[in-house]
Amino acid sequence: MALVLSAHPQVTATLVLLLSVLSLAAGGKLLVVPVDGSHWLSMREVLDGLRQKGHEIVVVAPEISLYIKPTKNFVMKMYSVPFTKEEMDHTFWRTSQHVFEEGSFLERIVKIYEGVKNTSAMFLSTCTHLLYNKELVRYLEESKFDAVFTDPILPCGQILAEHLSVPSVFLLQQIPCGLELEATQCPSPPSYVPRVFTDLTDRMNFLQRVKNLMFELPNYFLCDFVFQPYAKLASEFLQRDVTVPDLLRQASIWLMKLDFVLHYPRPLMPNMIMVSGVNCVPKKLTQEFEAIVNASGEHGIVVFSLGSMVSEIPMKKATEIADALASVPQTVLWRYTGEVPPNLPKNVKLVKWLPQNDLLAHPKTRAFITHGGSHGVYEGICNAVPMVLMPLFGDQMDNAKRVESRGAGLTLNILEMTSKDISTALKAVINDKKYKENIKRLSDLHLDRPIHPLDLAVHWVEFVMRHKGAPHLRPAAHDLNWIQYHSLDVIAFLLAVVLLSLFISFKCCLFCCRRCCCKKGRTRKPTKSKSH
Amino acid sequence: MALVLSAHPQVTATLVLLLSVLSLAAGGKLLVVPVDGSHWLSMREVLDGLRQKGHEIVVVAPEISLYIKPTKNFVMKMYSVPFTKEEMDHTFWRTSQHVFEEGSFLERIVKIYEGVKNTSAMFLSTCTHLLYNKELVRYLEESKFDAVFTDPILPCGQILAEHLSVPSVFLLQQIPCGLELEATQCPSPPSYVPRVFTDLTDRMNFLQRVKNLMFELPNYFLCDFVFQPYAKLASEFLQRDVTVPDLLRQASIWLMKLDFVLHYPRPLMPNMIMVSGVNCVPKKLTQEFEAIVNASGEHGIVVFSLGSMVSEIPMKKATEIADALASVPQTVLWRYTGEVPPNLPKNVKLVKWLPQNDLLAHPKTRAFITHGGSHGVYEGICNAVPMVLMPLFGDQMDNAKRVESRGAGLTLNILEMTSKDISTALKAVINDKKYKENIKRLSDLHLDRPIHPLDLAVHWVEFVMRHKGAPHLRPAAHDLNWIQYHSLDVIAFLLAVVLLSLFISFKCCLFCCRRCCCKKGRTRKPTKSKSH
Repeated sequence: MALVLSAHPQVTATLVLLLSVLSLAAGGKLLVVPVDGSHWLSMREVLDGLRQKGHEIVVVAPEISLYIKPTKNFVMKMYSVPFTKEEMDHTFWRTSQHVFEEGSFLERIVKIYEGVKNTSAMFLSTCTHLLYNKELVRYLEESKFDAVFTDPILPCGQILAEHLSVPSVFLLQQIPCGLELEATQCPSPPSYVPRVFTDLTDRMNFLQRVKNLMFELPNYFLCDFVFQPYAKLASEFLQRDVTVPDLLRQASIWLMKLDFVLHYPRPLMPNMIMVSGVNCVPKKLTQEFEAIVNASGEHGIVVFSLGSMVSEIPMKKATEIADALASVPQTVLWRYTGEVPPNLPKNVKLVKWLPQNDLLAHPKTRAFITHGGSHGVYEGICNAVPMVLMPLFGDQMDNAKRVESRGAGLTLNILEMTSKDISTALKAVINDKKYKENIKRLSDLHLDRPIHPLDLAVHWVEFVMRHKGAPHLRPAAHDLNWIQYHSLDVIAFLLAVVLLSLFISFKCCLFCCRRCCCKKGRTRKPTKSKSH
Repeated sequence: MALVLSAHPQVTATLVLLLSVLSLAAGGKLLVVPVDGSHWLSMREVLDGLRQKGHEIVVVAPEISLYIKPTKNFVMKMYSVPFTKEEMDHTFWRTSQHVFEEGSFLERIVKIYEGVKNTSAMFLSTCTHLLYNKELVRYLEESKFDAVFTDPILPCGQILAEHLSVPSVFLLQQIPCGLELEATQCPSPPSYVPRVFTDLTDRMNFLQRVKNLMFELPNYFLCDFVFQPYAKLASEFLQRDVTVPDLLRQASIWLMKLDFVLHYPRPLMPNMIMVSGVNCVPKKLTQEFEAIVNASGEHGIVVFSLGSMVSEIPMKKATEIADALASVPQTVLWRYTGEVPPNLPKNVKLVKWLPQNDLLAHPKTRAFITHGGSHGVYEGICNAVPMVLMPLFGDQMDNAKRVESRGAGLTLNILEMTSKDISTALKAVINDKKYKENIKRLSDLHLDRPIHPLDLAVHWVEFVMRHKGAPHLRPAAHDLNWIQYHSLDVIAFLLAVVLLSLFISFKCCLFCCRRCCCKKGRTRKPTKSKSH
């Protein structure tokens, strides 16, 4: 057979292609390196879609995690990490508590910095334990994956993809310091694309544009602070010098969980695919929750959650909130695991966990009190539920600003808000029809799409598996340095040519004038002398 | 009823919304202002799709045209134009013949310029006769359209959309001088996005980048030459000063007939939707063509067409081509209406018209000889047929360059090519497997999409009809001037602040130094005098 094949190389090539197509038709092999928390929840939706298409999915995850649990749907490869569940929970808890602590601006910044540092250290340690788990990595090397599917907010998955020489697909909303823009070579003019953490919209006056441009600088340092340890880890592991942008640049497709009903319109690159709404597939409520919702009567319910990382808050704050919730006739479902506030009104049900999207999808839901995480905000938009936003950290302030600027919700400062503020805001979004109308308009636009974002995400992961990447979508800008990209060398050259031409012309004119003057001078002088 | 409604404004609003949704569910009303030639062919495919969705489609077209003919599918509103079919055919014929005329570079440029000027004058006159056809415009005003669907290569449709205050959707590949980039505020760095007519790819060396940047200048003049008369016409008709970019900026959605398997990857804007392949829906061949194809035996056929505008060529060229075609065993179907060359070989069938896409879709088709119009090139890619390209004018040189740079075809210079060149190129693309493999790879990538481009195009036209536009996709960049967009004012301000700070610091230091020196000076002097 080998002899026959080698005698007909074209037949061999066709057979090999046919076999590989057949093997993929029977399902490809995908390596998934997820990020914990709400990030995992939307990724799992896409994985379920891929599983239904018959692909084999291998998920590598740390033994200790918030949400990533073994399931029958995927092959789960767990690896050990040097911390316990209690230590992890405590780290998250401490970080989230810092947000509520009072003190001077500087004190708070230092505390939040400490918290983020501890959390980052834990993530880094997790990544190190994955990469240096020799047995697991050998298994991955031998598994011959078609693609790696990962969340680039932590570049661990891309380090593995590089090591395995396998194309990768990213699922993300955004990365700290806008690294996704640098890594995709996506233009992002600071004149109308607000930077993260600036609290600005796309319509800025002069001073706001100054602020927006100046935010590039702290972003640069933030980037270095967050990603430098990963660059070091990757360089050691891959045994060559790499930076994190270098790594991320290699991704074939960026599945972006954003939509311009919420985000401000800005340039995109061909390998960026908008898939916001992947997590908005409502399922039937469990009997327990169905009963609560049905018992709420004509007033309906309010869904209240501060996200996967914050399930308890200081008692003083909890008491204030409880006080405010008593002022509305709606039943409030509050995800809260802390000590029960003494003034907890009858209309508030505390739950350790709630099926957020399924509750928001219920027609009896009147409002959504949220911390403004991108996951929750898009669920609010998808289900057309007006929001009261209490942003805590990260991109939540920006998300809250966007919802508010669209007239689809109200934002509260979680540190300064009083019981009355909460009550007023909640009553407004429930009773003032304009909030419902605005969120309904956003929802209509968001849902009016030619293909469900989940199908779109599944298609592009499969595309990369089928074609071993998507090099035809990779802009040549990746091969240019900063000066070349901005044509500064060309502009300098053309300027030099123009200046040189002007200089030579000027010199020529001067020379001609002088000759003329000299002649005149010479002609004159004798005349003068003659006249004398 | 009116009283009841006005007493409950919210009920009124809901009812009005419900009625408008219901009226659209039963089909919206679309005004179509098409452009003749191959542009109409792809637009007609989208219109057929929209018609099937139950929308009422009104097409306004000149009485004299190449392809736009009355049909039962749409309401056709024809308007008179001040030229006959013969005059129009003669203008097109003369323009196309200029391409083949020999002479110095300058002579040819002047002749081509003359030809383009005559054609442009005809299009402008057509537009003027549409806008000033009072009866027709009154009918359009009274018709209450949901959207205007047009090809912006001629801005006549958008002038009408502005007049009627109706949102618009554009279908295009590109506009002369890259106006689509300016009008959508789409960044297009000259360092890796080749300009039209430059014959460059996305990978350029320093001198090529200089050339690419310098091409902005002739582009600017070309733009003015082509569009200034339309700006004048629009300003008079709309009774306010407008430029053509101002007009085009108002479009809600730009349906772009391009794909990055052929075009070089570059930034996009959120309201640009890639729909290349709308025209690649093969239909069954007529008996006549089916018979020719079947009679071609194992060697199959070659499809040869120089596009809708060039159906005859000078006899000398035709004889050379006929000579070359005799050297291949394939049956060649040549769209040609001129005088039959005396040496026409037996394997060449001359036809006045051919179903290009349906023939290319036939498995017996081995090669495609084309002028490289975007329409034909995408049909070649869609059906995976390797190409011999003979570009004539416009963007055809760029298209040919792209196909050749992908190894999917060979380009010939139509003026300089000899019979041997044609024969060699044709044999190469038929017999050298690499051309077939490369076009097959492009075709696989092009066809591997989550939704058919025709459905995508139909969706977005309907989207604009349903939502009265797509303002959420409109970037705030439209409200900035050139200086603001590029942040030049902010950079100047920050530079001024930095320089001023440096200057003040320097002055302070100088002042301090002087004081120190003076003191020392003062202390020293008396010492000196004392020592004396």
